[in-house]
Amino acid sequence: MLSKAVVTELVSICGRERVLTEPEDLIGYSFDATAALPRRRPEAVVLPVSTEEVVQVVKLAGRRRIPIYPRGSGTNLSGGTIPLEGGIVLVTTMMNSILEVDAENLTATVQPGVIVQTLNDAVASYGLIYPPDPGTVATATMGGTVAECSGGLRGLKYGVTKHYVMGLEVVLADGNVLRAGGKTVKNVTGYDLVKLFTGSEGTLGIITGITVKLIPAPEHRRTMMAVFDDLDRAAKTISEIISHKVIPATLEILDRVTIQAVEEHARIGLPTEAEAILLIEVDGIREVVEKEAAVVLEVCRRQGAASIRAAETDAERDELWAARRAALPALAQLKPTMVLEDATVPRSKIPEMIRGLNDIASKYRLKIGTFGHAGDGNLHPTILTDVSDEEEMARVERAVDEIFTLALQLGGTLSGEHGIGMAKAKYLEQEFGPAGVEVMARIKHALDPLGLLNPGKIFPPAQGKILSQGEAGVKEQTPAAREGLG
Amino acid sequence: MLSKAVVTELVSICGRERVLTEPEDLIGYSFDATAALPRRRPEAVVLPVSTEEVVQVVKLAGRRRIPIYPRGSGTNLSGGTIPLEGGIVLVTTMMNSILEVDAENLTATVQPGVIVQTLNDAVASYGLIYPPDPGTVATATMGGTVAECSGGLRGLKYGVTKHYVMGLEVVLADGNVLRAGGKTVKNVTGYDLVKLFTGSEGTLGIITGITVKLIPAPEHRRTMMAVFDDLDRAAKTISEIISHKVIPATLEILDRVTIQAVEEHARIGLPTEAEAILLIEVDGIREVVEKEAAVVLEVCRRQGAASIRAAETDAERDELWAARRAALPALAQLKPTMVLEDATVPRSKIPEMIRGLNDIASKYRLKIGTFGHAGDGNLHPTILTDVSDEEEMARVERAVDEIFTLALQLGGTLSGEHGIGMAKAKYLEQEFGPAGVEVMARIKHALDPLGLLNPGKIFPPAQGKILSQGEAGVKEQTPAAREGLG
Repeated sequence: MLSKAVVTELVSICGRERVLTEPEDLIGYSFDATAALPRRRPEAVVLPVSTEEVVQVVKLAGRRRIPIYPRGSGTNLSGGTIPLEGGIVLVTTMMNSILEVDAENLTATVQPGVIVQTLNDAVASYGLIYPPDPGTVATATMGGTVAECSGGLRGLKYGVTKHYVMGLEVVLADGNVLRAGGKTVKNVTGYDLVKLFTGSEGTLGIITGITVKLIPAPEHRRTMMAVFDDLDRAAKTISEIISHKVIPATLEILDRVTIQAVEEHARIGLPTEAEAILLIEVDGIREVVEKEAAVVLEVCRRQGAASIRAAETDAERDELWAARRAALPALAQLKPTMVLEDATVPRSKIPEMIRGLNDIASKYRLKIGTFGHAGDGNLHPTILTDVSDEEEMARVERAVDEIFTLALQLGGTLSGEHGIGMAKAKYLEQEFGPAGVEVMARIKHALDPLGLLNPGKIFPPAQGKILSQGEAGVKEQTPAAREGLG
Repeated sequence: MLSKAVVTELVSICGRERVLTEPEDLIGYSFDATAALPRRRPEAVVLPVSTEEVVQVVKLAGRRRIPIYPRGSGTNLSGGTIPLEGGIVLVTTMMNSILEVDAENLTATVQPGVIVQTLNDAVASYGLIYPPDPGTVATATMGGTVAECSGGLRGLKYGVTKHYVMGLEVVLADGNVLRAGGKTVKNVTGYDLVKLFTGSEGTLGIITGITVKLIPAPEHRRTMMAVFDDLDRAAKTISEIISHKVIPATLEILDRVTIQAVEEHARIGLPTEAEAILLIEVDGIREVVEKEAAVVLEVCRRQGAASIRAAETDAERDELWAARRAALPALAQLKPTMVLEDATVPRSKIPEMIRGLNDIASKYRLKIGTFGHAGDGNLHPTILTDVSDEEEMARVERAVDEIFTLALQLGGTLSGEHGIGMAKAKYLEQEFGPAGVEVMARIKHALDPLGLLNPGKIFPPAQGKILSQGEAGVKEQTPAAREGLG
């Protein structure tokens, strides 16, 4: 429990209404969208409305040695916002102004609490878009998506959050305010602090201002769906499309388990014996789109797709997207708990990865549905389980270990877009080796010597303090996890 | 002087032929392509051929507390490779293998000594390109351009080096080898160390392996030139092209001083009374290129360009490019010394910046020719002077101070693409404030606690050790500076 004096100070900084200390108010901040992780109630929640208030809270936390957990909407999928050591959860959702849309320089500057979709709505009237599109665009904040470096369905063509963050204002652990980057396309002054803080998961500073790059909205798009009886042919189709120099905006895959789950759930007429479905969308100037769509269709035919559909209208497009949209909710219905991973491999390794996932599923007698962003190798193997079944959860944990080992063996990475948080901290050294983890730990220590910013995240847990998925605690799947698809 | 024992150890690591200690061999490593900076001879130069040799040299340097200066071809324009404290210059040019071109995943993996153009030649047969194109592509190494985060003429549409570096192998100050990133488009595992080392100018580690992203080569391009009697109309043209959602691959500007210099030097028929010339190239799929070219020409007409030319053939394209290519050599002929800056502003501020540069030129009675990458706001104000004229050099230094102050006032940055090195270190705090410089210094100290990696670069010089452009030393312009255009 925080002392009365600390609470009084928090109230003097933020005002009575924006400091929460009642148990019933705190409980909503004890978890995020990640399944099967321990919960922990914070000691207080503050909702600052200005950078200056953030500075004052951080300084107070420093003086009193209280851990501080920055949080946006809590939609992340790696346990990144869970207040492991209690302390203060600092919620940025009330800092939600779009400060500027600069159409001439193709930038927008926002406070961290702005919802991603709200920004996109605001720039639409200029004919511009902010491309990063995590599944949670309608609820996730800009601050959260920058802290997590969120991905989404358009990564192959448009990149992810870090490719759009141009400038940041960050409150550092000592309460100093850093401003780095800005509106210039080119900037090589000093170290790239903008990129260092992007994706640092709140462990190095608290983001209080963001300048992002915008791009012209594509004027036209074309959506296609191809069904394959053979996984290799689906995979071959993916690489052949790209080797024809067509870079689709979206290139998604659904495997057989996912197809069957979707069909059972939504009855949209998917062929349940198919091995894979590809959903492909090309966008841009009309002439290019038509040309690229023709290439995609020709490649699908040549690779022997069992069936191919191309949407002619918006309604038909919605139909094709329905299968992909239903993937996560459909899988979620099969079992009480869903462990959603985001192991990522080089695009060419997708067939090997999917076959490996099937082997792991057999070996541990688990149901794993795999779908995801095939174009950029970012798959979402989704283990369907029940958190109350301890014996099965032990198998799940071993399966997850093997999934990460496989992804790394194939030249991949632990996380394509969900971040490390608590959920994957114990695997970090497997990817980076001791030298890499030490470099990161030194940076963390240099910028947060007291270790008060989001402690317990990213870094492998200290001995005697193992925070694995198998640990005690309430581990139900949260409703947000069912929606929170990257 | 290094002790005999150290030299013996270096020879035992790299072999006799790849350790240089004779004064005549060392002199070529006492400067780089930057004008008007002090020179300093290293005590030894080593040319390792493997990561393991780099590790051994770095460990030796650590044990003996010898500063170590990584260097590629030495084409940089901020004094980044000058061995300020003597020590060892570690040249990576003999680590020059292209290890892999992975056409399926659109990546290439190279050793640091590979020349940028050599990589592009190697990937051309796959129909791919590596887009970053500093003016020195034919001589600069991949390692050097990654360490400097080089820019070039295609930044607006294609971005700069950091947008293409996906994975790095780095020898750290303690001799450990870090491997970060890889071939996956998405990767959010831990801090973005790839981006941290990219552009860190050899102060955090020595890059020994690089995986870069490749993109399909544009199939078609269209080059246009427009002459303006009015600077504002030229600037308006730039923003209007972009507001029409046309993002040219190249959008260059030449100001009146540069136009006159080019015409005097090359006699290619430029209108010497013009205020600005824009060189605009759009590329991509033929249909798009023709459509975009039509937009560009229409905007130029509407903004009242005095004359407009569009190349119909490769020969005509070369003619249009001739003026831009001649800019730097032409300016270089006017005076013995050329101080080439790369202050960068948001695109919309270009007219203000150019007018400000003209005011600064008048105030300090200097000739400043300005040209550069107008599309991304990255201008090259080029002060024409004579390093042997002390009184004029004092005015040059004050003018440079004002140029940076102006760029920062306009929301810009000290360096768009040349880096900080020695040349701009004293301005760093003006952009980042004390908090920003401290964050960088902490990172530097965390990763290089003995301060042996490229000391004296990026950070403001310590008291009593001012390394300004006005300081003593041989300050002639090097031949490379005349070519070394970003």
